[in-house]
Amino acid sequence: MEFPSKLIEDAVNEVSKLPGIGKKTALRLVLHLVKESEHKTAALTDALNRMRTQIRFCKTCYNISDTEECSICQSHRRDKSIICVVEETNDVMAIENTAQYNGVYHVLGGVISPMNGVGPADLKIDALVDRLMRAQSQVKEIVLALSPTMEGDTTAFYLNKRLKDFSIKVTSIARGVPVGGELEYTDEITLGRSISSRVPFQV
Amino acid sequence: MEFPSKLIEDAVNEVSKLPGIGKKTALRLVLHLVKESEHKTAALTDALNRMRTQIRFCKTCYNISDTEECSICQSHRRDKSIICVVEETNDVMAIENTAQYNGVYHVLGGVISPMNGVGPADLKIDALVDRLMRAQSQVKEIVLALSPTMEGDTTAFYLNKRLKDFSIKVTSIARGVPVGGELEYTDEITLGRSISSRVPFQV
Repeated sequence: MEFPSKLIEDAVNEVSKLPGIGKKTALRLVLHLVKESEHKTAALTDALNRMRTQIRFCKTCYNISDTEECSICQSHRRDKSIICVVEETNDVMAIENTAQYNGVYHVLGGVISPMNGVGPADLKIDALVDRLMRAQSQVKEIVLALSPTMEGDTTAFYLNKRLKDFSIKVTSIARGVPVGGELEYTDEITLGRSISSRVPFQV
Repeated sequence: MEFPSKLIEDAVNEVSKLPGIGKKTALRLVLHLVKESEHKTAALTDALNRMRTQIRFCKTCYNISDTEECSICQSHRRDKSIICVVEETNDVMAIENTAQYNGVYHVLGGVISPMNGVGPADLKIDALVDRLMRAQSQVKEIVLALSPTMEGDTTAFYLNKRLKDFSIKVTSIARGVPVGGELEYTDEITLGRSISSRVPFQV
């Protein structure tokens, strides 16, 4: 792409580093900012800079938080005996949206991925073990809610090994045919697993 | 969406103001920045701020330019007797990419759109008329390269009326079946126009 201006080129290059944003989309976004008032761009960049420099993480569950301990960890209405282990903040948001979970969380900050150079030490796994030791058997259950990918499964396997010494039940979110999904369009691995791990019929 | 942090919420709100970016995509982009180093976010926002505050427009064709007059207007190899009228900078880039045009440009900065409150006075139309008067009949042809939409057609119609007093040929880019397009998948208006405005067969 030939740019009419070095300023546009630099901006497009930076914007297109974001995941899922190609050069064409980046150019469209940058030209949109040019058409809007300078104030709009300033508001956008200010919000991003403030977010990035001031962001904090909960000292207990490592979720993003504006306070030292997040509102979920602080809440007296949440069941502290169940910890749901997730990869990222957006997983917490997705599970909170279901309104089906009343325990607390632990945000790993990713999954084990040798391909991307992410090992167990890069994640909040030691922190989880410390947290369980500090809790002194008040925690009864760890729910693993990781992505059903190779990396997610590897991480779940590793976590299960590390958690063996604690007398804590380790569970995993159910895998199966999605609600509303058509059987014939479900991939065979999911369908196969959903048959082999069938459950008693519930009304 | 319930955000774990006001900082994240503000950033997502700003990012989702960009065209084509919804709240979910905005959240994904913002959380990506959280995972990357602070330096990355600073590089992004710096590039955007610099672009927005320092951007300049060519004094002749109103295309984005780092210099007072853009490289196309300055070039001695471009034919100054043909001016191609386009809506935006990205249209100039698209036409330049074809390497089929050797004239100069005039960037309107949009199209007439009463729905969005854009009238002729908001565009560089008077500037085009001034430019033609200054050129003193050195300009032989105006090529209208506007979008084939209601707004684009309205703008072309208005421009044609304004340009009547000059003895300048006004042309429009050809409309028809796209190269590589299948006849049966071409919409009927395009196909109809391509028949009614058929051209002599060329080898």
